[in-house]
Amino acid sequence: MKFLHSKNRLESVSDGVFAFAATLMVVTIGNNATITSFQDELPNLISFAVSFFVMMAIWKVHYNYFRRTDFIDNWIIAFNMVLLFTVLFYIFPIRSLINTGTGGVRISIEKFASIFQMYSSGFLLIFLCFCFMYLRAYKKTNDLKLLFYSRHFFVFVLVALISFIFATLRIGLLFGFPGFIYAFLGPLCYFHSKWFHKKHNLKY
Amino acid sequence: MKFLHSKNRLESVSDGVFAFAATLMVVTIGNNATITSFQDELPNLISFAVSFFVMMAIWKVHYNYFRRTDFIDNWIIAFNMVLLFTVLFYIFPIRSLINTGTGGVRISIEKFASIFQMYSSGFLLIFLCFCFMYLRAYKKTNDLKLLFYSRHFFVFVLVALISFIFATLRIGLLFGFPGFIYAFLGPLCYFHSKWFHKKHNLKY
Amino acid sequence: MKFLHSKNRLESVSDGVFAFAATLMVVTIGNNATITSFQDELPNLISFAVSFFVMMAIWKVHYNYFRRTDFIDNWIIAFNMVLLFTVLFYIFPIRSLINTGTGGVRISIEKFASIFQMYSSGFLLIFLCFCFMYLRAYKKTNDLKLLFYSRHFFVFVLVALISFIFATLRIGLLFGFPGFIYAFLGPLCYFHSKWFHKKHNLKY
Amino acid sequence: MKFLHSKNRLESVSDGVFAFAATLMVVTIGNNATITSFQDELPNLISFAVSFFVMMAIWKVHYNYFRRTDFIDNWIIAFNMVLLFTVLFYIFPIRSLINTGTGGVRISIEKFASIFQMYSSGFLLIFLCFCFMYLRAYKKTNDLKLLFYSRHFFVFVLVALISFIFATLRIGLLFGFPGFIYAFLGPLCYFHSKWFHKKHNLKY
Repeated sequence: MKFLHSKNRLESVSDGVFAFAATLMVVTIGNNATITSFQDELPNLISFAVSFFVMMAIWKVHYNYFRRTDFIDNWIIAFNMVLLFTVLFYIFPIRSLINTGTGGVRISIEKFASIFQMYSSGFLLIFLCFCFMYLRAYKKTNDLKLLFYSRHFFVFVLVALISFIFATLRIGLLFGFPGFIYAFLGPLCYFHSKWFHKKHNLKY
Repeated sequence: MKFLHSKNRLESVSDGVFAFAATLMVVTIGNNATITSFQDELPNLISFAVSFFVMMAIWKVHYNYFRRTDFIDNWIIAFNMVLLFTVLFYIFPIRSLINTGTGGVRISIEKFASIFQMYSSGFLLIFLCFCFMYLRAYKKTNDLKLLFYSRHFFVFVLVALISFIFATLRIGLLFGFPGFIYAFLGPLCYFHSKWFHKKHNLKY
Repeated sequence: MKFLHSKNRLESVSDGVFAFAATLMVVTIGNNATITSFQDELPNLISFAVSFFVMMAIWKVHYNYFRRTDFIDNWIIAFNMVLLFTVLFYIFPIRSLINTGTGGVRISIEKFASIFQMYSSGFLLIFLCFCFMYLRAYKKTNDLKLLFYSRHFFVFVLVALISFIFATLRIGLLFGFPGFIYAFLGPLCYFHSKWFHKKHNLKY
Repeated sequence: MKFLHSKNRLESVSDGVFAFAATLMVVTIGNNATITSFQDELPNLISFAVSFFVMMAIWKVHYNYFRRTDFIDNWIIAFNMVLLFTVLFYIFPIRSLINTGTGGVRISIEKFASIFQMYSSGFLLIFLCFCFMYLRAYKKTNDLKLLFYSRHFFVFVLVALISFIFATLRIGLLFGFPGFIYAFLGPLCYFHSKWFHKKHNLKY
C-alpha cells in the first residue's frame, strides 16, 4: 500500500507560490503609475527589490534542499506547507515596512520592538522548517550531509531566538542591537562547519 | 486515433490553481498593513492559516490520487475541473467567515443553518469528485486499491450529506450538531477499512 | 546551430496563464462576501462557473494539440502566444456579461449586435490559431491526423465568420439567430469527419 | 559536496513569474467593463497587446537561453532573478504609458526625456543579464555559440546605452531620435554575426 512520492509536484506547487508572491510584490506599481519618472519610483524600487530578492533567497534555500535529497514523505510535505505559509505571511509586510523606513516616519520604541519580534519570529519559523526538513530526511536516509545542513539551519534558529529575546527585553534596542546579532551568523556557521567536518572526518 | 494523455500537464494546471489560490488567501494583508504589530495581525493569522491549510490538505488528497494511479481520460479531466471549481468557490468565503467568527459578531439561526448547508454541500461536492475519479480509474484498471479509496471518500460524502440534512431540518443546530457529525468520519473510515480488507483478503 | 525546442516549457507557461486566469475569475467573490448565504451567491455561481468551464474547455483543446504532436517551432510558439492573448482578452468580460444577463437588464439592439460581433470574433480568432497550429505541424510532419484537425477547427472558424456577418447585417438578431448558428457546428463537423476519413481511407 | 542543479525548477519558477505577469496585464479590463462594445476597448486592446507581446518576446529570449545550454550554477540563478525583477519592474508601467500615448495627452519635454531614459535603462539591464548569463555559461563550457550570443546581446546593451546618453543630453529628442537608434540593432547584429562567423570559421 506504498505509493511513490512525486518530488516534481511538490516542487511545482511551491514554485507556483514563490513565483506568484514574488510577482505580486512588484506588480502594484503598474496600477497607480500613469507616466512615472525615475525620481518618483526610486523609493518603491528599493522596497520592491528587497522583498523580491529576500523571496528569491528563500526560494534558493528551498531549491537547495530538493537538490540535496530526493526523500519526501508526509512530514516533509507538512513542513513544506508550514514554510510556504510563514514565507507568505511574513514577506508581504516587509514592503510596506521598508516604504515607511525610507519615508522617514518616526516610529515609537514599542513599535520598533514589536517589528524586531515579528521578523525574528518569522526568520526563526522559516529556518526551523528547513531544520526539521533536513533532520527528517537525515533520519530516513542517514546521509551525513543532511545532518550537517540541519544543524547549519539550527544555528540560524538560535540566532533568531536570541534576537527575539533581546527585542522582548528591550536590550540595546535603540542601537538596533537585535538586528546586529544577525551579523554573528557568518562566524557561527563557519565554526560549526569546521567542527562538524572535523568530528565526522568529512572533506569539504 | 488514440493519443497518450499527459499526466504532467493536468497536474501542472491543477498545481497552478492551488498555488495561486493559496497565495491569494494570504496576500491581502500586505496591502492594508503599514507597520503591523503582532497583536493586530493575530485574528487575521488564524483565518489565513485555516484557509491556507485547508487548501493544502485538499491539494494533498489531489496529490495522493495522482500518486496512486497513472490512469487519465476525459472523464478524469472533467471531474478534476469540477473539483478545482468547487475548491475555488468554497474556499474563499472561509476566510471572511472565520474573521467574523473571531470578531464575536452574533449570527441569526437562519444564517447559521445556511452556513452549515453551504459548507456541507461544498465538502460533499469535493469528495464526490474524488469518489468518482477513483471509481472511474478502478473501472478501467481493476486495481482494488482504487475501489477502496473510492468507497473511503464515499463515506466522506455520506457524512456530509447527513450534516446537510440535519442543518436543513435544524436538528440540534444550536449545539452545533451538524458540525460534530464530522467527528464520526474517523471511526466510520476505520471500520470501512477493516471490513474492506477482510472482504477482499488484502493486507494493510 | 539548431537547438531542441522544449515542449515542456511552452506547456508550462501556457498552463500558468490558464491556471491564473481561471483562478482569478472565481476569486473575486471572497473579497466582497462577509457571511454569504446560498441565495446571494447563486447568480455569481452561474457566471463564475460558465467562464471557468469555458476557460477549461479551451485548455482542453490546447492540451489535445500538444498530445497529438511533439512538433514545435517559432511559428507554433507565436500562434500559441496570440491564442493566449485572445483567450485572456475575451474570457474576462464574459463574467460581467452573464451577470448582466441574469440580472435582467434590458439591452439595446445596438449593444446586442456588438456583443455578438465581439464574441464571434473572439471565437474566430481562438480557433484560427488552433487551425494554423495544426496546419503548421502538418506541413512539417506530414501526419494526416493533423491535417484533419486543422480542417476540423477551420469549420469552427467558418461558422464564427457567418455568425459575425449575420450580427453585423442584423439578420434575425432579435431571435438570437447569430447565436443559433453555432448549433450547426455539430452536424458540420460530423460530415467533415466522414468525408475526410473516406477521402483519405482512414479508420476512425 | 556537489549537488546537481535542477534546470527544471529554475525554468518552472521563471515561467510562473512570466505567466502570472502576462495574465495580470490583460486581466484588469474584466473588472471595470460591464457590457463592453468594440469601440470602447480598442485603445486598451493596443496597450494590453503591446505589453503582453513584449513580455512574451522576453520569455522567448529566456526560453532560447535554456535551450542552448544546460549549464546552471549560482551565478546563472542570480542573473536570472535580477532579470525577472527588471522585467517585472519595467513592463508594468508600459501599459499605462501606451494608454496615455493613445489618449493624446501632451507630455512635457522633461517627462519625454525621462521616459526614454527609463526604458533605455530597462532594456539595457535586461539584455545585460542575458549577456552575463551567456558569458558565464561560455566560460564554464567553452561552447563558442554561447560566446556568440553573449556578444550578440552586448550589441543590444551598447545600443540601449547610446539611446540613454542621447536622451540624457536631449540630442534630437523632439524627433524621437533616442527611439530611432534601436533601428540600428538589425544591421549591427547582422554585421556582428558575419564577423564572428568569419573569425571563428563557423558555419551558420
